[in-house]
Amino acid sequence: MIIVLSQKASGQEKDSLRRDLEKRGFEIHESQGKTTTIWGLVGDTSSITEDELLAYDSVKTVRRIKEAYKLANREAKPEDTVVEVSGRKIGGGYFQVIAGPCSIESQTQITEVAESIRQAGAGLLRGGAFKPRTSPYSFQGLREDGLQLLLEAKKATGLPIVTEIMRPDAIPLFEEVDVIQVGARNMQNFELLKELGKLRKPILLKRGLANTLDELLMSAEYIMAGGNSQVILCERGIRTFETSMRNTLDISAIPMLKKKSHLPVVVDPSHAAGLRFMVEPLALAAVAAGADGLMIEVHNDPARALCDGPQSLTPAMFSELMDKVKKLLPLSGKQMEQGE
Amino acid sequence: MIIVLSQKASGQEKDSLRRDLEKRGFEIHESQGKTTTIWGLVGDTSSITEDELLAYDSVKTVRRIKEAYKLANREAKPEDTVVEVSGRKIGGGYFQVIAGPCSIESQTQITEVAESIRQAGAGLLRGGAFKPRTSPYSFQGLREDGLQLLLEAKKATGLPIVTEIMRPDAIPLFEEVDVIQVGARNMQNFELLKELGKLRKPILLKRGLANTLDELLMSAEYIMAGGNSQVILCERGIRTFETSMRNTLDISAIPMLKKKSHLPVVVDPSHAAGLRFMVEPLALAAVAAGADGLMIEVHNDPARALCDGPQSLTPAMFSELMDKVKKLLPLSGKQMEQGE
Amino acid sequence: MIIVLSQKASGQEKDSLRRDLEKRGFEIHESQGKTTTIWGLVGDTSSITEDELLAYDSVKTVRRIKEAYKLANREAKPEDTVVEVSGRKIGGGYFQVIAGPCSIESQTQITEVAESIRQAGAGLLRGGAFKPRTSPYSFQGLREDGLQLLLEAKKATGLPIVTEIMRPDAIPLFEEVDVIQVGARNMQNFELLKELGKLRKPILLKRGLANTLDELLMSAEYIMAGGNSQVILCERGIRTFETSMRNTLDISAIPMLKKKSHLPVVVDPSHAAGLRFMVEPLALAAVAAGADGLMIEVHNDPARALCDGPQSLTPAMFSELMDKVKKLLPLSGKQMEQGE
Amino acid sequence: MIIVLSQKASGQEKDSLRRDLEKRGFEIHESQGKTTTIWGLVGDTSSITEDELLAYDSVKTVRRIKEAYKLANREAKPEDTVVEVSGRKIGGGYFQVIAGPCSIESQTQITEVAESIRQAGAGLLRGGAFKPRTSPYSFQGLREDGLQLLLEAKKATGLPIVTEIMRPDAIPLFEEVDVIQVGARNMQNFELLKELGKLRKPILLKRGLANTLDELLMSAEYIMAGGNSQVILCERGIRTFETSMRNTLDISAIPMLKKKSHLPVVVDPSHAAGLRFMVEPLALAAVAAGADGLMIEVHNDPARALCDGPQSLTPAMFSELMDKVKKLLPLSGKQMEQGE
Repeated sequence: MIIVLSQKASGQEKDSLRRDLEKRGFEIHESQGKTTTIWGLVGDTSSITEDELLAYDSVKTVRRIKEAYKLANREAKPEDTVVEVSGRKIGGGYFQVIAGPCSIESQTQITEVAESIRQAGAGLLRGGAFKPRTSPYSFQGLREDGLQLLLEAKKATGLPIVTEIMRPDAIPLFEEVDVIQVGARNMQNFELLKELGKLRKPILLKRGLANTLDELLMSAEYIMAGGNSQVILCERGIRTFETSMRNTLDISAIPMLKKKSHLPVVVDPSHAAGLRFMVEPLALAAVAAGADGLMIEVHNDPARALCDGPQSLTPAMFSELMDKVKKLLPLSGKQMEQGE
Repeated sequence: MIIVLSQKASGQEKDSLRRDLEKRGFEIHESQGKTTTIWGLVGDTSSITEDELLAYDSVKTVRRIKEAYKLANREAKPEDTVVEVSGRKIGGGYFQVIAGPCSIESQTQITEVAESIRQAGAGLLRGGAFKPRTSPYSFQGLREDGLQLLLEAKKATGLPIVTEIMRPDAIPLFEEVDVIQVGARNMQNFELLKELGKLRKPILLKRGLANTLDELLMSAEYIMAGGNSQVILCERGIRTFETSMRNTLDISAIPMLKKKSHLPVVVDPSHAAGLRFMVEPLALAAVAAGADGLMIEVHNDPARALCDGPQSLTPAMFSELMDKVKKLLPLSGKQMEQGE
Repeated sequence: MIIVLSQKASGQEKDSLRRDLEKRGFEIHESQGKTTTIWGLVGDTSSITEDELLAYDSVKTVRRIKEAYKLANREAKPEDTVVEVSGRKIGGGYFQVIAGPCSIESQTQITEVAESIRQAGAGLLRGGAFKPRTSPYSFQGLREDGLQLLLEAKKATGLPIVTEIMRPDAIPLFEEVDVIQVGARNMQNFELLKELGKLRKPILLKRGLANTLDELLMSAEYIMAGGNSQVILCERGIRTFETSMRNTLDISAIPMLKKKSHLPVVVDPSHAAGLRFMVEPLALAAVAAGADGLMIEVHNDPARALCDGPQSLTPAMFSELMDKVKKLLPLSGKQMEQGE
Repeated sequence: MIIVLSQKASGQEKDSLRRDLEKRGFEIHESQGKTTTIWGLVGDTSSITEDELLAYDSVKTVRRIKEAYKLANREAKPEDTVVEVSGRKIGGGYFQVIAGPCSIESQTQITEVAESIRQAGAGLLRGGAFKPRTSPYSFQGLREDGLQLLLEAKKATGLPIVTEIMRPDAIPLFEEVDVIQVGARNMQNFELLKELGKLRKPILLKRGLANTLDELLMSAEYIMAGGNSQVILCERGIRTFETSMRNTLDISAIPMLKKKSHLPVVVDPSHAAGLRFMVEPLALAAVAAGADGLMIEVHNDPARALCDGPQSLTPAMFSELMDKVKKLLPLSGKQMEQGE
């Protein structure tokens, strides 16, 4: 952490700041320029925020040198993390496709979709039981019943399942769920993250609509600080001024996250675009940019889907996409394996 | 709701869409142009989303005419809602200032601050016990103990209190809290909103960092749909590309929210700016633009505040600000009353 | 400028960087921490960009301490700049209202509007002759003829005039124009700025839709570096994700610009909101936040305005607004004077 | 264009609006719902803006159905436009790589880089002579001299050249330039666009930092409306809240622009990321998403580049990238041809 002192800071103010910092266990390296005094702060700076320092009138500006996330940081663990879900690996050269409907609607629907994506080569099944909806008047998911149907589809197809949690006290319901998803709107639901940190189960953490990559990694850190190191990061589009699509897929997030962190990065082109015709080009772009996996919405009857119909692929479209992904993967030096 | 049909839509596709809509109880008014067919959808369109319609290949575009929020809508209730907190009114010409420290740190701190803001004319005391922090390594608030100290400060000063909740299962702890605050990061924590809708207690709902005003009103609608109509909206700055301040206060939100809704609108200039010197001009701007109240961070020793020090006013600065607010209020046709 | 060296930087790389910097006349202060080496760069850092330093593999990160703008910087000139337009002062406690139609349409229109705003107390007349329009099929302004009509209105009312320039080679046409406006879309039209720097005439520089305040000040610096120090800054709304209004007025820009710079700051609430009912609350908010002036669109028949009708006030509405502004000004410690 | 009338609109107001619209040659189709009156406007709606209609108090909301751009619209010309530059084709299945330094610095530099990119397979040479720089104190390009050096490099290597124009009166200097580039900051420099519309020479039009895709197409329309149909669109990153990279590459712009328009779409990953290590993954992502070309910054000594060093590839890195692009192209059904 670098602290630039204000030119107007008195000797007394500086001493007071110095004492406060030393009391917290930091060492100070002073560098005196012609008009500027700079302090380098040595110690575990993850416990101090820029704001705590800026609160002193004697401080002009602060620059964090070392990131505040430690466990998620690639500097702390240079090799890629490989998350294993019932024998299926993601990260470190292993690629997985997670597919399924936005929301679980009926036994027929989820089982049909599950079977079709399995045949096309998807490694995990997704399906929403608890649905975060902007409007209280929209379909809120089948909830417990939906979870039950998803578990049946898991049994029928052998596909591990991914589904979203929305509140800490619902965790017991997710015992047989293979990967618990934290949605974009809950990325900074810190109480939820803390509870998920106590589990020993993979967590798929979606980036919030307007959260920076550093904030995403700080949220991963919440889970990891609790002892659960199996975090999969997911880029799903951010909110910008552009209005012709629902969200703007931040494709640069892939190389940047992989530089900053060792955690696997999955991309959800369906939510990013919100439009069916864009899912394939965005999915292929994500593979080319180095993603470790994809998350794709597939529905057997998109026009009658209870949510996110406009962005859902039909099973036939999904199968075509998978063929292209399979051709592209070798160029990215990655392999897709569906377990045995 | 207006539906513009795709030029390529076949008769069969149109019939199928028409049947689906009629099955859901909507009536269709068709208007046939030279190249464009437009349907007007008549019925309770709050139960249908644009996405459900766009999922049909036969639909080119959709435009909602009537807002999806009903109870929060000024069309449904033209007169201003006045929320009453232990005899102190907000909205409908009544103005309130909520002040206090970002987080509760000790009995001395909260009681001193509470007493000073009461003397300066604040009507409600705020203080954070459960703190949403970006980093798991930052101070997370005194939690239950903090709540206890806040209740003691309430007793000592007679000021009703406002504090933040972060998870649904914590509600029982908030029984003696006068106004429950939902923070920006939880604005779309729908499970929490649903539970708060079951209470009969004022809720201060902060706008999310990247949420539109319509989304804010939809979140208010979640609470109101549960039967709790005492919602206070709070603008606290949005996330933009500008880097010289923490957030960008959306001052336009005040007149726009008051046009769209009958709910009171409070502004938090402290979090918006993140910088002490900007709190006063932004607070005065909010009053001039028609806000129903202010929420201001005050700390007796900002430099040693455990959170948000850079934006906290000292009691003396707060007192000066209050003098200016009092002079400005008559020009806005509002009055501040502190109960008896 | 602070340079944090990469841990991986070799001694040879550091020497090479040091030589390059010393050749450019900078002195280097080194501070050696446990894991981090920091250089403080001493000299005129306005001539070096962060990018030039980041291009070296040996550099991890760079932090500018001293702003790159020198002439526009309040540190270089602590007292407020007062711009004088035909005896009317803006800045340093003097407040001016600039009003008039978005575009000049006819002699009757511009003269009628000019007369009505003069009576209401406006100090300067605005009117667009050359109009930047998103579509080539939209009305592009009356151009030279419009300028002529504006000059006639100036003669008829005695009001100094403000109008927009769009290309460097048009400067000769603006000889009798009192204040030349640079529109938001041309804020970084550097060739135009350079030419305006050669004039000795006030320039009203509007902030671009997605430009930071530092970029705005760098554009002011372009004009000032040419020798023209009469720059008036104008905040007119920025582009964000919010869709219920045209732009988001960045009210915080007022105190922040006044802290960073000594130049006067004017606010254009008409373009910011794009909606008539929001002009008054935003205008009053700007005054309360410390603006040095307002720029307001007024049209005698908004519904038939050839541009920006939805945000234009009628003369009667403008007159009402002026009454409120006059009441508010004393609270801000400012005075409005219309010359003699 | 769909007009939703305000419920409060009087019969007289409606009649007045109807007369105004009919006078402008539009036909009105009325659809009367229970509470809502909707008018469909039939005629050439590219000449009317939403704002002109919203200026009427009787209008509640307006929705454009047909895009305001006509010549750039794929509906008007379903087949892809192929732009030909000295025999090298871009668009319609033809792919080109444009490469070279951010700014031309010396004969050796530009000739060396030109030769190396030619050998690696680039089809066009880029180099900046007139440089738009945020600071007046930064290197502004070699200007006329730089142009001269670029023309010499063209002669030496046979590569057609691309370079940026910044003002209308500079057009005569660009006679021997093969493709004239309009930079992001000039995307809405409408006076410049109009002049470029009079040429019969390819124009590379870069998207502004905060401009929507529809605005980009409207700017293309300015050029095309003048009679110059050879426009190449370029996505180069947009401005968002994310701070870890310079801009956010909007990868979705590729499929969306190709759906909306027939014009070729080129991607500039160098400016988007601003960081060397991200250029390759972003370039490959652009190819996978369907781009018609790439624009890449290459410098023989990035650390001493006078601009944009951090994002410039060395010739060796560029050559490696080209190998990967060549392997990827067949999967996208595109071919790269370098003329004869």
